[in-house]
Amino acid sequence: SRSINLAVIPGDGIGQEVVAQGLKVLRAVLPQDVKLETREFDFGARRYHATGETLTDADVEALKQHDAILLGAIGDPSVPSGVLERGFLLKLRFLFDHYVNLRPSRLLPGVATPLAGQPEIDFIVVREGTEGPYTGNGGSIRTGTPHEVATEVSVNTAYGVERVVRDAFARAQARPRKKLTLVHKNNVLAYAGHLWTNIFNKVAKEFPDVTTDYLHVDAATIFLVTDPARFDVIVTDNLFGDIITDLAAAVSGGIGVAASGNINPSGAFPSMFEPVHGSAPDIAGQGKADPSATILSVALLLRHLGYEAEAARIEAAVSEDLAARGDSVRTTDEIGDALAVRVAG
Amino acid sequence: SRSINLAVIPGDGIGQEVVAQGLKVLRAVLPQDVKLETREFDFGARRYHATGETLTDADVEALKQHDAILLGAIGDPSVPSGVLERGFLLKLRFLFDHYVNLRPSRLLPGVATPLAGQPEIDFIVVREGTEGPYTGNGGSIRTGTPHEVATEVSVNTAYGVERVVRDAFARAQARPRKKLTLVHKNNVLAYAGHLWTNIFNKVAKEFPDVTTDYLHVDAATIFLVTDPARFDVIVTDNLFGDIITDLAAAVSGGIGVAASGNINPSGAFPSMFEPVHGSAPDIAGQGKADPSATILSVALLLRHLGYEAEAARIEAAVSEDLAARGDSVRTTDEIGDALAVRVAG
Ligand SMILES: CC(C)[C@H](C(=O)O)[C@@H](O)C(=O)O
Ligand SMILES: CC(C)[C@H](C(=O)O)[C@@H](O)C(=O)O
Repeated sequence: SRSINLAVIPGDGIGQEVVAQGLKVLRAVLPQDVKLETREFDFGARRYHATGETLTDADVEALKQHDAILLGAIGDPSVPSGVLERGFLLKLRFLFDHYVNLRPSRLLPGVATPLAGQPEIDFIVVREGTEGPYTGNGGSIRTGTPHEVATEVSVNTAYGVERVVRDAFARAQARPRKKLTLVHKNNVLAYAGHLWTNIFNKVAKEFPDVTTDYLHVDAATIFLVTDPARFDVIVTDNLFGDIITDLAAAVSGGIGVAASGNINPSGAFPSMFEPVHGSAPDIAGQGKADPSATILSVALLLRHLGYEAEAARIEAAVSEDLAARGDSVRTTDEIGDALAVRVAG
Repeated sequence: SRSINLAVIPGDGIGQEVVAQGLKVLRAVLPQDVKLETREFDFGARRYHATGETLTDADVEALKQHDAILLGAIGDPSVPSGVLERGFLLKLRFLFDHYVNLRPSRLLPGVATPLAGQPEIDFIVVREGTEGPYTGNGGSIRTGTPHEVATEVSVNTAYGVERVVRDAFARAQARPRKKLTLVHKNNVLAYAGHLWTNIFNKVAKEFPDVTTDYLHVDAATIFLVTDPARFDVIVTDNLFGDIITDLAAAVSGGIGVAASGNINPSGAFPSMFEPVHGSAPDIAGQGKADPSATILSVALLLRHLGYEAEAARIEAAVSEDLAARGDSVRTTDEIGDALAVRVAG
């Protein structure tokens, strides 16, 4: 009999509420014969304030014992900017070698977009997750003086770029349009840009049925608002991916419905699934948060673990729910309930 | 009697056409007593192909003899990506210490935007122009092998950050809303982020009447499409500024009307004014390019040289022209003529 051993990290702010709905829908969609075991972890601001810890070695070992991780959101204004981000979220992405940061963007029927004319939007961004400007390499001398110099080093390796580019080509090949766009800034960041461009062009030869193109990141932001339909699959570096996926989420219905997966395709470490949104402390505990992004992240989690039919059922349920919701204002719990009913039905 | 000694660099593609209109409008708006002298320089793809040069020491000396520079656009597909960008455009920004890269965004009446509901957009971005990831620091080892490592170093100094932050505060203070937003990614790029944030907070104390806030660059892209009216003045680093100003141009009428100034406020070197758009080789020589962005860049040039009334006249003319244009398709030349008439009248 099958089983899923899931690590659950509700985290801070609305993380608690949305993860509860994610689990509700997960339980509703799973076939009877699949045994779901969950273990909750208390990472985030409260643990940090209580113990000063963000993620200990023992935590990492405990997390490793799971098939996957479901994360709500980490972050609170009471903790200095960056402490939880670098001490927990990025640390985990790097330790568990989540080199494919997968972020789909689909504008579902009935969903509002800030763009005029309700354009067709259906693309995925494959964001590199373990290199680039996110490595924490850098430093500062004469800190706090008028002579301070602060550096940040973007580190890019052929090994790291090739594996994520290869993953993106495979994803593009599996989609009807079979189109892959490399986004970088190779006219300015020449060293990293040449590495990315050369590897992209080399791997392209192995995927002759995939159409390719290249855009500078600045131009990509223009197309994301003027012609998002031009995109099918995008592959890009860690920082550019961070920036364009928030923009992509904004144009395709907002961060209330933007899901993401931090994936280690080799399976050597558990992959982690989380909504793109943050902990939104201003609305926490009020039942105002939209759990759809977390529930769609559960779909990505199921797909990653091989439950394709269940993943598709969640995605269809969210589509139908959004199309049907009209102007009704529903609580976090009500949306979770409605989706649990749909996926079970 | 007054005079302007202007270096003119038409450059590649549509650069030629739009600069011609910029000069036409400049001549029409200048009072009789101002003597305009222009010298044209042939930088760009043709010069590069003919001589292999992008910008020689002698060129730099010659450019220094001018009060300001008007640039069309540099770049052509026949030249490898980055050669002209780094060998000419960025080289000049760095050599002439253009640390204020000024990019206003205003959605003018009658201008189409990809955003629904025609939002109010009227902000300026002060992009740092001489530091950050644009310094060309970086390198590659084992280049072209499976073991390549390529780095890019973002270099940030207290000196460089403070002067541009100070400039942005002064600009914010001079505007009715007096609001300044710092855009960075200080939760990930901790060293550079702390430097920017600390200096921003320190300088803020000297401008108590300026309201300040902070946004991560990813969040800033969301607000640029969901609530652009929240922005008044933005100050940001070289790369983030590159990205968000293209997005800002897209939402506020497109790069056909986006102007920019590469400014050295001390006056030690000539400042350079250019449309945000590129050389657009696909439409070059067909009279299809909108010269408005170049003409608005001429307005920034005039303001920089102290001709405030003339700058305002050009901006008003472009506003009126855009509001009046309806669906008529006009050539580059016709738009330039219409604006020359308006500013003279
Ligand atoms: C919280 C932050 C460190 C993170 C990132 O920059 O990757 C977030 O913006 C994201 O996109 O998941
Ligand atoms: C052409 C390129 C080097 C340049 C930049 O990145 O600064 C351009 O995109 C700009 O914004 O002026």
